[in-house]
Amino acid sequence: MTKPLILVTNDDGIVAPGIRALVEVASELGEVVVVAPDSPQSGKGHAITIHDPLRLNKVKVFSGIEAWECSGTPVDCVKLAKHVVLKGRTIDMCVSGINHGSNASINIIYSGTLSAAMEAALEDIKSIGFSLLDFSFEADFGPGKSWVRKIMQYTLDNPFPHGNLLNVNIPKTVIKGLRVCRQAEARWVEKFVEGRDPSGQPYYWLTGEFINSDPGTDTDIWALEHGYISIVPSMHDLTNYKALEGMRGLEMMNETG
Amino acid sequence: MTKPLILVTNDDGIVAPGIRALVEVASELGEVVVVAPDSPQSGKGHAITIHDPLRLNKVKVFSGIEAWECSGTPVDCVKLAKHVVLKGRTIDMCVSGINHGSNASINIIYSGTLSAAMEAALEDIKSIGFSLLDFSFEADFGPGKSWVRKIMQYTLDNPFPHGNLLNVNIPKTVIKGLRVCRQAEARWVEKFVEGRDPSGQPYYWLTGEFINSDPGTDTDIWALEHGYISIVPSMHDLTNYKALEGMRGLEMMNETG
Repeated sequence: MTKPLILVTNDDGIVAPGIRALVEVASELGEVVVVAPDSPQSGKGHAITIHDPLRLNKVKVFSGIEAWECSGTPVDCVKLAKHVVLKGRTIDMCVSGINHGSNASINIIYSGTLSAAMEAALEDIKSIGFSLLDFSFEADFGPGKSWVRKIMQYTLDNPFPHGNLLNVNIPKTVIKGLRVCRQAEARWVEKFVEGRDPSGQPYYWLTGEFINSDPGTDTDIWALEHGYISIVPSMHDLTNYKALEGMRGLEMMNETG
Repeated sequence: MTKPLILVTNDDGIVAPGIRALVEVASELGEVVVVAPDSPQSGKGHAITIHDPLRLNKVKVFSGIEAWECSGTPVDCVKLAKHVVLKGRTIDMCVSGINHGSNASINIIYSGTLSAAMEAALEDIKSIGFSLLDFSFEADFGPGKSWVRKIMQYTLDNPFPHGNLLNVNIPKTVIKGLRVCRQAEARWVEKFVEGRDPSGQPYYWLTGEFINSDPGTDTDIWALEHGYISIVPSMHDLTNYKALEGMRGLEMMNETG
């Protein structure tokens, strides 16, 4: 039996501890190829590189595993993996992460990790973004690894909806189990730290506080706060279907000319 | 009566012709403040700048209009506008664009223009992203301007759903009217142009072809191909509600331990 081909990427960069943990798990389940950014790309969202050329270099980072570092964004990595590195081969699964820090709720739209997973989903590759609720580079990926393995195995073994990806977030400490959830209605309330650089010029540095105002018990934030891994099946369609009919009033303009 | 406060931004940069056209229309409807990138930011998606400080400079670009250029992404511009430039003031509407080139269908997730509009929507500001189906800096924004004005006026005058934004795309030539649509199921099929730089090192440059496989007549691509302005009410929730129940099988793992 041929082993499944698993593409691994992330947004913290190819030398981050989180991608190493993910490569270890993935290599137990299939043939692994890594294409990941050569520098940290947190918060890059679904950015792609249009106006500049991209660099791609084969590197020895993981023992016995084919790995490439790319100068672009996480989404660029997935595109290069498909069209250059693995050209003509069928990718059975793409896993992105394990991210250092939460990508639950609204974080999905800012996250390079999840945007890479979404890009793979757009290519109809079974796709999962993994994140651990611990920003530290010293984070302990151990307790979550058996769950990561089980979720990957399940995804390989079962049918997967067209264009779907899984946004998987893992609590920092105790793991009671997992929950399939919706994305919580939470948001960031930003602040900017203002300062002066050594030459006296002003600068602004983004920071903020994550606020969850969603009372639902079926959300990812609820699951994580109660010790469960959250799994949000996600996709790319941003149409606001609930608002569609209500906005038809705009079409009245067609009559007034 | 106080004039509405309108924030204008874009992703092509503060000197692009498209933002000039938008500022002209917006200044007929309200008090305008511009906060836009100091360089082109196409394809930046929902990227934010976390690891670097941001620069913000007041500039004279539009006669009689307060304008600031920012070193960050379009989403950074909206955050800085709210929390620094317009701190404490209520922004009545945010308009982003007019983008040089289509942001219909899947382009919304790659687009800096639409991500800026989405960021404003997350702040519960009435928000619209405008794009013209013409990549040229010589593009003629004239024919679309009366429609842009009407759509903005409608948005100011009518209730607007919480967290909603409008993704408005304008045909290049004849405009027959407008349609409220859903996002078409279309995608990019990428290619990479491979080359060698002057020092002989390989590079890869992203290009691709836009493929619409969606047969629906209720989509933005259909509207644009038939001479209509497309308006897709959009939002930030990426939960794949259709797949949610089907993925519950994952929760079986809780029992097997």
